[in-house]
Amino acid sequence: MTTSPHTYAVIMAGGGGTRLWPLSRRETPKQALKLIGKKTLFQTTVDRLKGFLPPERILVVTIAEQAEMLKAQAPELPEENFLLEPAPRGTASVVGLAATVLHHRDPEAVMALFPADHFIRNRDLFYHLLRTAVKVAEQGHLVTLGITPTFPATGYGYIQRGERLPESFDYPVYQVKRFKEKPQKEEAYEMSVRGGYSWNSGMFIWRTQVILSEIERQMPKLKSVLDEISAALASPELASVIQTLWLPLASETIDYGIMENAEKVAVLPASGLDWSDVGSWDSLFDVVLPSDKQGNIFLNGEAIAEDTRNTLVYGEGEKRLIVTIGVDDLVIVDSGDVLLIARREQAQDVRKIVEKFKKENRKDYL
Amino acid sequence: MTTSPHTYAVIMAGGGGTRLWPLSRRETPKQALKLIGKKTLFQTTVDRLKGFLPPERILVVTIAEQAEMLKAQAPELPEENFLLEPAPRGTASVVGLAATVLHHRDPEAVMALFPADHFIRNRDLFYHLLRTAVKVAEQGHLVTLGITPTFPATGYGYIQRGERLPESFDYPVYQVKRFKEKPQKEEAYEMSVRGGYSWNSGMFIWRTQVILSEIERQMPKLKSVLDEISAALASPELASVIQTLWLPLASETIDYGIMENAEKVAVLPASGLDWSDVGSWDSLFDVVLPSDKQGNIFLNGEAIAEDTRNTLVYGEGEKRLIVTIGVDDLVIVDSGDVLLIARREQAQDVRKIVEKFKKENRKDYL
Repeated sequence: MTTSPHTYAVIMAGGGGTRLWPLSRRETPKQALKLIGKKTLFQTTVDRLKGFLPPERILVVTIAEQAEMLKAQAPELPEENFLLEPAPRGTASVVGLAATVLHHRDPEAVMALFPADHFIRNRDLFYHLLRTAVKVAEQGHLVTLGITPTFPATGYGYIQRGERLPESFDYPVYQVKRFKEKPQKEEAYEMSVRGGYSWNSGMFIWRTQVILSEIERQMPKLKSVLDEISAALASPELASVIQTLWLPLASETIDYGIMENAEKVAVLPASGLDWSDVGSWDSLFDVVLPSDKQGNIFLNGEAIAEDTRNTLVYGEGEKRLIVTIGVDDLVIVDSGDVLLIARREQAQDVRKIVEKFKKENRKDYL
Repeated sequence: MTTSPHTYAVIMAGGGGTRLWPLSRRETPKQALKLIGKKTLFQTTVDRLKGFLPPERILVVTIAEQAEMLKAQAPELPEENFLLEPAPRGTASVVGLAATVLHHRDPEAVMALFPADHFIRNRDLFYHLLRTAVKVAEQGHLVTLGITPTFPATGYGYIQRGERLPESFDYPVYQVKRFKEKPQKEEAYEMSVRGGYSWNSGMFIWRTQVILSEIERQMPKLKSVLDEISAALASPELASVIQTLWLPLASETIDYGIMENAEKVAVLPASGLDWSDVGSWDSLFDVVLPSDKQGNIFLNGEAIAEDTRNTLVYGEGEKRLIVTIGVDDLVIVDSGDVLLIARREQAQDVRKIVEKFKKENRKDYL
């Protein structure tokens, strides 16, 4: 599949992710986990993008403490394509840094932004949509890839679409009418059945020129920091320049900081991607993982399930046999030093446990 | 508490017990487990009897492969008080061997028989009842300690009582009308509410003279073997004599082989002993183990229970933290190489798993 030589991908890989605790920890963040198949979520994301772009045009933004691990997981990416944040300052800063670096390399650049830790089963459709998104972005739009709701999710933000764009593309593209925060149950139900809404997937496509102008308009302080960084890009002092400028930055997301009030925002609704943000243990049931006839999913180890239904068992490899008898709708995760047994619909409450450990400063479990 | 110098206790400690799998295994049989408190069930049984008898009058019958482990757990018992079966041949043979050895030591002996792996919380009542049982046995009765049903158990045999014995004892004692095998649900319910029935606890008290006469009458082949052993008791060849005579014996229980058709059988009903045969994971809820306000029982390790009720968590000591979220009525047992998660009322089905492993000859899990 040919793409314009001005197209680049940027993978955001700095996150932690407490909702997959006890597997996700400080030292093994979500993108470094082998949840689905034999590769980590980060490696799977790189693989997916390599079907669309050469490695030289795939960049990774991460934090210093994860950089070596990620480089080792994707040795095919050039060293200089790993951009390091001195500390996390939200996705708006990540976008700004990546756009600044890319714009310096290629003023015609179109950058496509992807979380490192999401999952997409239908790669062909992904590539087709991405090609369309690049075309829309080339015309000056800030494009967001929206996911057509498959259930009334309360864990995602929603995008309400407006008029269809007048131009003809391979797939329908719409103006964005409104970004909506994570809804309550009733509103989620209504949006998921009414049509005209997409989940906000966190995948964005735009020209660096356009996003940098929006940053200048809406977040001028960030823009002046980015300009100083841009001026230092060829300097041997670059790292210390970034360090000095970065730490005082306020943390802000690209959604709140830019997208909600941006001009020319478009949504390209995706249907049938088999997408998941892999945001909780429960979400693993949504990505059509191989299951037995009783709906049980067994990952990473040996399990015997007697009279067991709709239960996820994540084992510790060969170390331990897991036997279940007479249980339904459980999530069982054995991470070595911690064993989690949770009701499926309450699996997101692992966040409460993590919060408790943070308060108690029990770093062994964080 | 004074007891007649002719009173002896015999602990039957040869069993395996698959219903507490994965904790109970060939090498760690049920009586060697620390389920309740810091001592093993066997040590707890020895402790309980030491409140009633000096160690010299407490005997243990076990199989060769468990002998060293049990001796190490109860070093206060004399070496010669450990009687070894070359191979398990049922409780009738155990009783016969112990009675033969004791009768040789003391023709006036009254022996009280106890499983090694049961639990009794109310020791004072136990001692009072035992003193009464010994008095009844001295008059020539085969006495069984019956447990007054506290729920309609289908996992125990029942004893129907007949007339009250005319003699006056400290506690009421009855003739036994009938031994009943483990009942179906409806019959169990009826017996548990009707009165006049006790659970068969496997605790028996009798004069060695009397039980040996019953064995002679009902199991003459066993008696002739026991006579040969009796004749060799002072011989240096004793072990090989027992070995040769033992292996051809048919396996038989004391209940079927002797008690059901014995003469002068009496039952001493116990009420309030807080007794359990610790026969399954579920049974641990019956022995009033310390639980939290939600009815959860935590044994052997650290656990965090969020929105969790009536759940038993048996951990692996300090090695692993167990976290439960939103679950009810589960039994969770972490044994190191096997992790069991079972619904409480189906916890006895671990036997099915053990049977499966036996068929597959997976000795690592047996």
